[in-house]
Amino acid sequence: MGSCKKTDTVTATTSKDSTATVATSSDPLPSWNDGTLKKDIIAYVTKVTKEGSPDFIPIENRIATFDNDGTLWAEKPYVQELFAFYRVKKMVEAKPELAKKQPFKAVVEKDKTFFEKGGDKALIDLIAATHTGMTEDEFEASAKEFFAGAQYPGKKVPLKQIRYQPQLELLNYLRANGFKTFIVTGGTIELIRAISSDFYGIPKDQVVGTSFKYKFDDAKNAIQRQPALDHFNDKEEKPVGIQLHIGQRPVFACGNEGGAGDIAMLKYASGNKYPSFQLLVNHNDSIREYSYQEKDNLSLNTAANNKWHVVSIKDDWKKVFADK
Amino acid sequence: MGSCKKTDTVTATTSKDSTATVATSSDPLPSWNDGTLKKDIIAYVTKVTKEGSPDFIPIENRIATFDNDGTLWAEKPYVQELFAFYRVKKMVEAKPELAKKQPFKAVVEKDKTFFEKGGDKALIDLIAATHTGMTEDEFEASAKEFFAGAQYPGKKVPLKQIRYQPQLELLNYLRANGFKTFIVTGGTIELIRAISSDFYGIPKDQVVGTSFKYKFDDAKNAIQRQPALDHFNDKEEKPVGIQLHIGQRPVFACGNEGGAGDIAMLKYASGNKYPSFQLLVNHNDSIREYSYQEKDNLSLNTAANNKWHVVSIKDDWKKVFADK
Repeated sequence: MGSCKKTDTVTATTSKDSTATVATSSDPLPSWNDGTLKKDIIAYVTKVTKEGSPDFIPIENRIATFDNDGTLWAEKPYVQELFAFYRVKKMVEAKPELAKKQPFKAVVEKDKTFFEKGGDKALIDLIAATHTGMTEDEFEASAKEFFAGAQYPGKKVPLKQIRYQPQLELLNYLRANGFKTFIVTGGTIELIRAISSDFYGIPKDQVVGTSFKYKFDDAKNAIQRQPALDHFNDKEEKPVGIQLHIGQRPVFACGNEGGAGDIAMLKYASGNKYPSFQLLVNHNDSIREYSYQEKDNLSLNTAANNKWHVVSIKDDWKKVFADK
Repeated sequence: MGSCKKTDTVTATTSKDSTATVATSSDPLPSWNDGTLKKDIIAYVTKVTKEGSPDFIPIENRIATFDNDGTLWAEKPYVQELFAFYRVKKMVEAKPELAKKQPFKAVVEKDKTFFEKGGDKALIDLIAATHTGMTEDEFEASAKEFFAGAQYPGKKVPLKQIRYQPQLELLNYLRANGFKTFIVTGGTIELIRAISSDFYGIPKDQVVGTSFKYKFDDAKNAIQRQPALDHFNDKEEKPVGIQLHIGQRPVFACGNEGGAGDIAMLKYASGNKYPSFQLLVNHNDSIREYSYQEKDNLSLNTAANNKWHVVSIKDDWKKVFADK
């Protein structure tokens, strides 16, 4: 390594994470407006990475977890839902009689009340029916095909352009400072793994999500996806997913208000023995993104009570979406 | 980054993995005897990392998985068992009436027939009884205390010295060539995570293993370990654990004969679209390590039928155990 002794710690990130090193010079967060929040993020990262400081966090404990829907990309509608509809179309094309069976029938006939009445269970049934019963290799091929062609409703842009530009910069900034970045999503783990490296510079093994049961098929030498939910990675189940996959509490945790899905994860990070940072995205920008709030304001209230940091999309983000 | 442009890809490994960069000069595997196997390992790594070669594997797909017991350290007896006995001692000290209850009674009275008769189930019950019913933070503290004091029976050395020196070199060599190294063990995931970084340079999130069910305790803001098995990471369940945690097939998979536990993992790697390498450790050195074989020789026969590589400890390893 000769001439670069001092830089080894900084470059010591995972292979995909090495795209990170770009943003370190001058302003690491150019799409964030200058203000208290941006200052607080930079102050936190600076103090916990300063060797000898009482707040120093060893590199192996610099774990950062990000929710995905509404935190790294838009969630109106969920990309997971778009993929389920895409799968219905493909499956009905291949086997037209499916169009008479639920939940396929409701999708084909655009019967919204079926899902409104059915709630979470109807949605999970739809996802199970469209995401399982195939090998992992087949599922990944299907997901990649979907992402290559899909556009986001309303915005008419490829799905890659509904990623939040400021968050891409934040991921890069954290990685450039030795943080290992993870996605901890309520979405299904393999759908996000299909694009985590390309969209976010995050390798497949650093994605934690909702999973179905798997079975090793010895004759096919492949993993078969079973139509039974294994882990629903939302709310109190997010710390559970983090323990199983990461094995330690995050020091930096970022989620969003909208479905109260990230409170437990942010709280879990606050129990870390090292200084932690909680960040909650507030969707309050009806012009550039979307505006939606929880009826009881639980996420924002919890953030206020615990002095967690809140991103006001309207005020804190200079630019919302990535160009390409 | 200035002067070290060309070295970035080589140092692009995870933080703990950066201890890896040592072994690249001259002989990367000094504790391996010169011979066909050592030559084959080096030839494989060379060809798959050579850009432009038809065998080239992109860095994000260089996934290497290693079994632990009998592959990275000795398994006569299992360290997991020693830890369970240690926990029984601690638990009985704290609550003497436990000594009258099974499975504690059998351990206290050194009643081997109880476990011989009870088989896998009795062992899992013992592990559940001694490894759960506490928070993750408490479990980790207990595991670290155990490792700090324990000696390996027969050998009278600290547990760190039952690691295989040639395997530590192989892990380093793979990481220096951009492979991401994972432990895929039948042992319980948290016990190995307590030492994976210190013993093997492998971060916690790169350990896949047997797990119990977890529950997030909101009042304690902690994960509580439940006495119910979630995933028993052995045989056909190893590919399942790999899919859940890693999300792709390994290209390099290493296990050992003894309990036929790694055949499915090695087979799973052979289904990779990239060139793969299978390595099976044969425990045939009664003088320096142990000598034990499966009754039906299933692992060695499968290796022979599939042309997998076999480590003869007696012939291929110049030195077996790590000094410290």
